[in-house]
Amino acid sequence: MTLAIPDFTAIQEAHRRIRPLIHRTPVERCRTLDQLCDAEVYFKCENLQKVGAFKYRGATNAVQCLDEVTAARGVATHSSGNHAQALALAARTRGIPAYVVMPKNAPQVKVDAVAGYGATIIPCEPTLQAREETLAEVVADTGAYFVHPYDNPQVMAGQGTAAVELLEDAGALDVVITPVGGGGLLSGTAITVSALAPETRVLAAEPLGADDAARSLAAGELIPSVDPDTICDGLLTSLSPRTFTVIQRSVTAIITVSDDAVKRAMQLVMERMKLVVEPSAVVGLAALLEKRDQVPGRRIGVIFSGGNVDLGNLPWMGDQ
Amino acid sequence: MTLAIPDFTAIQEAHRRIRPLIHRTPVERCRTLDQLCDAEVYFKCENLQKVGAFKYRGATNAVQCLDEVTAARGVATHSSGNHAQALALAARTRGIPAYVVMPKNAPQVKVDAVAGYGATIIPCEPTLQAREETLAEVVADTGAYFVHPYDNPQVMAGQGTAAVELLEDAGALDVVITPVGGGGLLSGTAITVSALAPETRVLAAEPLGADDAARSLAAGELIPSVDPDTICDGLLTSLSPRTFTVIQRSVTAIITVSDDAVKRAMQLVMERMKLVVEPSAVVGLAALLEKRDQVPGRRIGVIFSGGNVDLGNLPWMGDQ
Repeated sequence: MTLAIPDFTAIQEAHRRIRPLIHRTPVERCRTLDQLCDAEVYFKCENLQKVGAFKYRGATNAVQCLDEVTAARGVATHSSGNHAQALALAARTRGIPAYVVMPKNAPQVKVDAVAGYGATIIPCEPTLQAREETLAEVVADTGAYFVHPYDNPQVMAGQGTAAVELLEDAGALDVVITPVGGGGLLSGTAITVSALAPETRVLAAEPLGADDAARSLAAGELIPSVDPDTICDGLLTSLSPRTFTVIQRSVTAIITVSDDAVKRAMQLVMERMKLVVEPSAVVGLAALLEKRDQVPGRRIGVIFSGGNVDLGNLPWMGDQ
Repeated sequence: MTLAIPDFTAIQEAHRRIRPLIHRTPVERCRTLDQLCDAEVYFKCENLQKVGAFKYRGATNAVQCLDEVTAARGVATHSSGNHAQALALAARTRGIPAYVVMPKNAPQVKVDAVAGYGATIIPCEPTLQAREETLAEVVADTGAYFVHPYDNPQVMAGQGTAAVELLEDAGALDVVITPVGGGGLLSGTAITVSALAPETRVLAAEPLGADDAARSLAAGELIPSVDPDTICDGLLTSLSPRTFTVIQRSVTAIITVSDDAVKRAMQLVMERMKLVVEPSAVVGLAALLEKRDQVPGRRIGVIFSGGNVDLGNLPWMGDQ
């Protein structure tokens, strides 16, 4: 069986489709960070995207692609992260129902956020098995269309639109770095960059405590994420065969970073750029700060993936 | 004796002078805040200005206005706040010395920031008298030019340039709201708005625990700030006769807000806009959230004055 994988034309179509519905997020610079990284760094600020994360691009593209009959039955997913909020708002924007399966122990603030976008929340036991079973029941009951957070060609195509804008605004780059969790953003970015700027390398960054993508790329086979342990709560998931196929084809390297480097990067962005970012968002900057020798070139694009963080519990609190 | 007060021409000249040296900060919108405020709110983001505060505008204008001979002797001030950093960087940019008198108990992070911009720091006892005496000695010893944080026509003119950009980017507004501490930003804004948009009202917002400007406006005479008590550490100072003259002439009202409203506004901006702001910066938004009935009209410009906040000690930490 061949996996459906979007090409760059699909990303261009996605961009035309979602452009009126998303924010064109800014590309920011910071002199202090340029000095610390010994580079010219162009930060694509998807923390300023709707729902505070690039996930809104992919969810919107997937929802907008549905035919009227399918759309009318609604969309469903299981997630306690940014994809849940993204799908909920994308569905509300199209005026269709969204069903989100969330573990009972999900933080109330996340449940409230998803409910605030008008989704129906279906609580389940906090195991992957329970989540998948509950989702299957919801889909069977409602006929809703399951939008996977990354293993979906329309979602991948939507995520690839951030890099289109980054290249438009920053000009020629030596490298683009994204975070990697399930690989939706990374694979979409790789397809865009390969088409628009074949000389530009695509790298990813990943926390050491969830380094399954780096190990998969090194091993040449998909190694699932088992018991990940990192403050980067958006990067805990495993690649899918679909995203891994693209990553193997077009990604030069995946750099692993310590949670300490993530913490430092996050603090620098908030102090110096005055931007709120979540830990997962800054692994690319952390790679530049911690392992600059592994990043070739001087003109570097970094995608800040999101800004949804508990401001009452920032990772450096409790430190001396 | 007549006090020198800048007119709008001085602000236009200041803008031409400093434009190449400052950031043109963005004017941002936020749908959630529009809904909460029942208004269209245009946020001028001076937290994204160099050194993280509008103070860089006034300091840069004052430093750039000096003749060569005066400039060569350097500039001096006493401050532990954003003006100290602003003057230090403005001086370094012109290539002249800066002397900053700081109380011995100033937080090390602030001392480091000022030193990081290359200023010479002169520690003094933590009383206003000691600060003024030490500054007088520094000026006598070095011949440096004293740049007051607000009671200075060039500084006031520089601060008035933020409103020029706000009106250019937001279009016609019913109201512009700024914080008020010493009155530099407020008076500069009032001069700009009176000239460019005489139908637009200028309001200020002030913490209840440092409401000397509101009381001064009500009493028709300058009432100094005594023992202020608020989390808005940038708004503790008294007006000067110079800033008060402008405020009496052109400011419609000064709205007082509770520290709780400031805290809530700050949290909303960080959570929803993903922007780091300091407590003093959001008193205008707090006024809209807490006392919307005191703000006429629907199209409202709000100046976020700065983003220099201790991220290890945000005001809601320790709350339940």
